[in-house]
Amino acid sequence: MTPQALIFDVFGTCTDWRSSVAREVAAVWPEIDATAFADAWRGEYQPAMERIRAGNRGYVALDDLHMENLERVAERFGVTPPDWRALNAAWEKLDPWPDVAEGLAALKRHAIIAPCSNGSIALMTRLAKYGGLPWDCILGADIARDYKPKHGVYLASAAALRLEPGQVMMVAAHNDDLHAARAAGLQTAFVPRPTEHGPGQSKDLEPDSDWDAVAPEFNALAERLYG
Amino acid sequence: MTPQALIFDVFGTCTDWRSSVAREVAAVWPEIDATAFADAWRGEYQPAMERIRAGNRGYVALDDLHMENLERVAERFGVTPPDWRALNAAWEKLDPWPDVAEGLAALKRHAIIAPCSNGSIALMTRLAKYGGLPWDCILGADIARDYKPKHGVYLASAAALRLEPGQVMMVAAHNDDLHAARAAGLQTAFVPRPTEHGPGQSKDLEPDSDWDAVAPEFNALAERLYG
Repeated sequence: MTPQALIFDVFGTCTDWRSSVAREVAAVWPEIDATAFADAWRGEYQPAMERIRAGNRGYVALDDLHMENLERVAERFGVTPPDWRALNAAWEKLDPWPDVAEGLAALKRHAIIAPCSNGSIALMTRLAKYGGLPWDCILGADIARDYKPKHGVYLASAAALRLEPGQVMMVAAHNDDLHAARAAGLQTAFVPRPTEHGPGQSKDLEPDSDWDAVAPEFNALAERLYG
Repeated sequence: MTPQALIFDVFGTCTDWRSSVAREVAAVWPEIDATAFADAWRGEYQPAMERIRAGNRGYVALDDLHMENLERVAERFGVTPPDWRALNAAWEKLDPWPDVAEGLAALKRHAIIAPCSNGSIALMTRLAKYGGLPWDCILGADIARDYKPKHGVYLASAAALRLEPGQVMMVAAHNDDLHAARAAGLQTAFVPRPTEHGPGQSKDLEPDSDWDAVAPEFNALAERLYG
């Protein structure tokens, strides 16, 4: 069954967060290892969300978690930015992978396209304006007030479109995201991003299950689904 | 202060709901007065939302209220559609006023643009695809789980963008909508749609207060704000 909506992981799947955040960090502190800082900042991401997923903290938007994590990592590196908010906005200036803007435009001719990210509506909206991502609407964590891979995030995103889970396809570069989406009843598409974590990446280089679609990039995914 | 986001009333302000719904009704029942049916259907809109605004009913998306109202009005007209859901989707096929797609594109170059409508995310998303409305994201009733002119809908829309109310401008063809938005702390812009209710329209032909901006259509609003 052809999906009526495609919902996307964004960090990693649509954007090269690592190089982009490192670029912003390097502009503030030329003296530190900006890529190591970006990795450390991102390293705080899952633990921060886990407290909320586990119900040990109420829902807090990712923008605020990013800021808390920035404070922690800056202390570890022994640095203080001149403007905390401006640096935290690094996450609104992530370069899309080269195929993404064109590929999304091709997919948009056939289906509703929306992020199903752990980023907030505010963050996803600004990121879309920065990178020219032509979303039809913004779904994901803010809609569900919880974080992936909790099934409620996929289900709330489908429900916001008044679609059954099986009418919606989750697109991600991360096998774990797709396992959760499939368990929630969604269709699944894997698009690898083999340099998301740099040249030494060892994870998510290949699909680890029989996902409904696998494509090397978004234009090929459009061709696979609707060509 | 130039607004960082512009949020829009949609039915009436962006789209000609009356002619569009009448067209869909006429396609189903050539024998009835389709414009009278459209007016009667829309006539049930405020009472249906009022029960929810008053707290006498939990939040129900406008798609479902439209269906309940359709059942009521079809009974009054003594007609039964061959496909209730297909006819209810008339509200997803509303023609934009002629200036809207181009005017929104002009405004989008300077600010975030989003609907702040009583329509659901699902309805606003499909309507945008039908009419080519280039929203950055979808805000409004579904975000707030309440209906305008309750202040919470304007405030939740600003908060979803992580903006202060005063950084956001509400754009509407209805003075009442703007009075509520102003009371919630938003900036206001009035764009009259003098034939929304047909040639005999007597309401909302003129601004009834000193709104922050007044323009005859969206391109002129872009010029006024950013030209």
